[in-house]
Amino acid sequence: MMKRVVIVGGGFAGLNAAKMLSNRKDIEVTLIDRKNYHLFQPLLYQVAMAALGEGDIATPLRNMLAGYDNITVFKGIVRNVDLETKTVHTDFGEIEYDYLVMACGVQHHYFGNNQWEEFAPGLKNLAQATEIRRRVMEAYEAAERTNNPIERKKQLTFVIVGGGPTGVELAGSIGEMSRYTLSKFYKHIDPKLTRIFIVEAAGRILGGFSPELSSKATRELEKLGVQVWTSSAVSDVDADGVQIGRERIEAATVLWAAGVQASDLGKCMGVETDRSGRILVETDLSLPGHPEVFIGGDQACFTHQTGSPLPGMAPVALQQGKYIGRTILGDMKGHVRKQFRYLDKGQMATIGRNKAIVEFRNLRFDGALAWFTWILVHIYYLSSFKHRVFVLAQWGWSYFTFGFGARLIVNKDWRFYGKDPNKADDSCKG
Amino acid sequence: MMKRVVIVGGGFAGLNAAKMLSNRKDIEVTLIDRKNYHLFQPLLYQVAMAALGEGDIATPLRNMLAGYDNITVFKGIVRNVDLETKTVHTDFGEIEYDYLVMACGVQHHYFGNNQWEEFAPGLKNLAQATEIRRRVMEAYEAAERTNNPIERKKQLTFVIVGGGPTGVELAGSIGEMSRYTLSKFYKHIDPKLTRIFIVEAAGRILGGFSPELSSKATRELEKLGVQVWTSSAVSDVDADGVQIGRERIEAATVLWAAGVQASDLGKCMGVETDRSGRILVETDLSLPGHPEVFIGGDQACFTHQTGSPLPGMAPVALQQGKYIGRTILGDMKGHVRKQFRYLDKGQMATIGRNKAIVEFRNLRFDGALAWFTWILVHIYYLSSFKHRVFVLAQWGWSYFTFGFGARLIVNKDWRFYGKDPNKADDSCKG
Repeated sequence: MMKRVVIVGGGFAGLNAAKMLSNRKDIEVTLIDRKNYHLFQPLLYQVAMAALGEGDIATPLRNMLAGYDNITVFKGIVRNVDLETKTVHTDFGEIEYDYLVMACGVQHHYFGNNQWEEFAPGLKNLAQATEIRRRVMEAYEAAERTNNPIERKKQLTFVIVGGGPTGVELAGSIGEMSRYTLSKFYKHIDPKLTRIFIVEAAGRILGGFSPELSSKATRELEKLGVQVWTSSAVSDVDADGVQIGRERIEAATVLWAAGVQASDLGKCMGVETDRSGRILVETDLSLPGHPEVFIGGDQACFTHQTGSPLPGMAPVALQQGKYIGRTILGDMKGHVRKQFRYLDKGQMATIGRNKAIVEFRNLRFDGALAWFTWILVHIYYLSSFKHRVFVLAQWGWSYFTFGFGARLIVNKDWRFYGKDPNKADDSCKG
Repeated sequence: MMKRVVIVGGGFAGLNAAKMLSNRKDIEVTLIDRKNYHLFQPLLYQVAMAALGEGDIATPLRNMLAGYDNITVFKGIVRNVDLETKTVHTDFGEIEYDYLVMACGVQHHYFGNNQWEEFAPGLKNLAQATEIRRRVMEAYEAAERTNNPIERKKQLTFVIVGGGPTGVELAGSIGEMSRYTLSKFYKHIDPKLTRIFIVEAAGRILGGFSPELSSKATRELEKLGVQVWTSSAVSDVDADGVQIGRERIEAATVLWAAGVQASDLGKCMGVETDRSGRILVETDLSLPGHPEVFIGGDQACFTHQTGSPLPGMAPVALQQGKYIGRTILGDMKGHVRKQFRYLDKGQMATIGRNKAIVEFRNLRFDGALAWFTWILVHIYYLSSFKHRVFVLAQWGWSYFTFGFGARLIVNKDWRFYGKDPNKADDSCKG
């Protein structure tokens, strides 16, 4: 008989689970996401840095799933889940399920200081990427306008909180942009004077990598002019900069790449989560006591393989999504469930052109070879879902000509008579 | 000796004036724009309709003018101009000039009902295009979610106020999208049921064209399912639709393509303007009594050629910009000023694939031929400033595969914990 599968979240986990269940007469899939697009997160920082356009790394979920008659997509917000009645409560009504797949991912976490977000946006969706691009480019515009050297220095100072892959990629991009690209565009300032800080609470950046690679990455960042501050926990963030204990950096632009926390849904449902809100799962990714409920991707806390939770990376989410889909199909055939095992695809981070680090099991390398590996892997996965004739060409082009990315500043407020100081205001003054 | 030229506005007029004055040791050009990009306005509606990306039709002014050492670009707002002291008052200080070129363009005008703007955004900049895209796509999402047929009808109703080229292009695009593209993406609604209205106060749409072509355009719109209401002046716009005298249309989405008004700067400066705020100019585009001040583009009211003001079109602005630049160079050589004469490039409007109208002096044609003419002309002018390897290919591709444009909805508010109902909200409810 017909099984109703509800999937919450259209990221790597949710999308791949849905595809596994596609084209089945006996399965009815409903995918719910608050965004209308699937995002290729690993390259989001390039949209923030204006090297890629939004359309290059995101595709509407509808387009991707249009071909499957048994999959319905809703853009909506899931408020809560009633595990007893097997009902999902959304902002557009209630939906019953036979199987539930939760893959809501994570958000930025300000360690209980949500007021910092206003001063230090994170990088998880297209709107945030656009906002970061706007702030970075506005800072250079303000620096070009001012005659006050102190103000200019502040405008040319960028602090990235958090030394994980995202923080490193952001810092590296700003370093490259300021050292190699922007100089010719400004007449009053020398963009090479841009100060870029990575502020990391731990003893070293890229803690997920081996100490050897993380120190290599630190050196590469330094060559791009990035100042790496480790053992530096941010104690306050305000409109003018960051406080690090008794040290302080005045900066017009602060970007947040530090903590993440899983969607609050776990808490809402009253299930067991770890400190960062990730839901503890069984060896088959199911919710303890609820074999009909699966958790996948960053939202899942899977500790059965290595003893510690699997990292929040695209490959993990992708494999978990496929596993969940296969497991549901297996259930319907009466098969016994297998355990989920993550096939380690290694990890990599890029710092700049010809600068990257790759770690694959015991294999470790960096430099140009690592960078090309990084590019090939990302082009491969990107084009696997961006079915556009020359996504590769365009992507490669945009990347190699970093300098020619369209660094457009789009106002936050579309209205012409808005309050936003960054935008049009025709009142007669002066 | 050194002449200081200040140009206000980086549109077709300002940009071309600046280029005319480039690479001169004896001229110092300062270009001020509130946006950081030059926009290819004629294709802006395609960004609103998600057929093109922002980067495809806009380029930062800095990139375009980077090669010219004597041109400085500031992103800023001009508050007022003191004609006596020859000083421009900006939000970042005062700038003196020997020559001033004003090319601030026009904004949308709500006939004294600015409160309508919230319900009916206009289409003049990238932020507005993004907002229109967001509203159109959100309407389809809401229609797919609801079970209430009245609400669904309202969500699938789009009213475009104004039957000029922009209004026709928007209506035609929505018609094409709903009739040919969207059907396969939605499971609960039939996008072909989308109602699209053009509400025009005058007796016919495209009043700038011959009656013959405007009636042809009306027929083409009808074939796409667009309902053309002429002699219909909007008397009120609210969150639920538009009032046209005693008639009313319930619509979730209302777009404004009606009146425009020139920048308030003319009023601020206390110079003579016409009813829509355009500054009256001499035969040499100078301000009466101020030969050192030029007005170009949509902001200028030039009546000396045809008796009526030249239309606000890119070709007019482009020619005026070049003329102003040449005239300043001529002044410096002591030449007598020539009158400005607009070399008629004709006009065209597109309705949809293979549907367009072209009017070139006494030559009039429509249909596929007109459409290809339209495409060629626009690709030619677009690529003349978008120096990207495959802008043509990409542009053509995006256009021909209208259906595959990335219809991304980017939240208005980038913040994760914002108040915006359209975005994430993790409070536990239901």
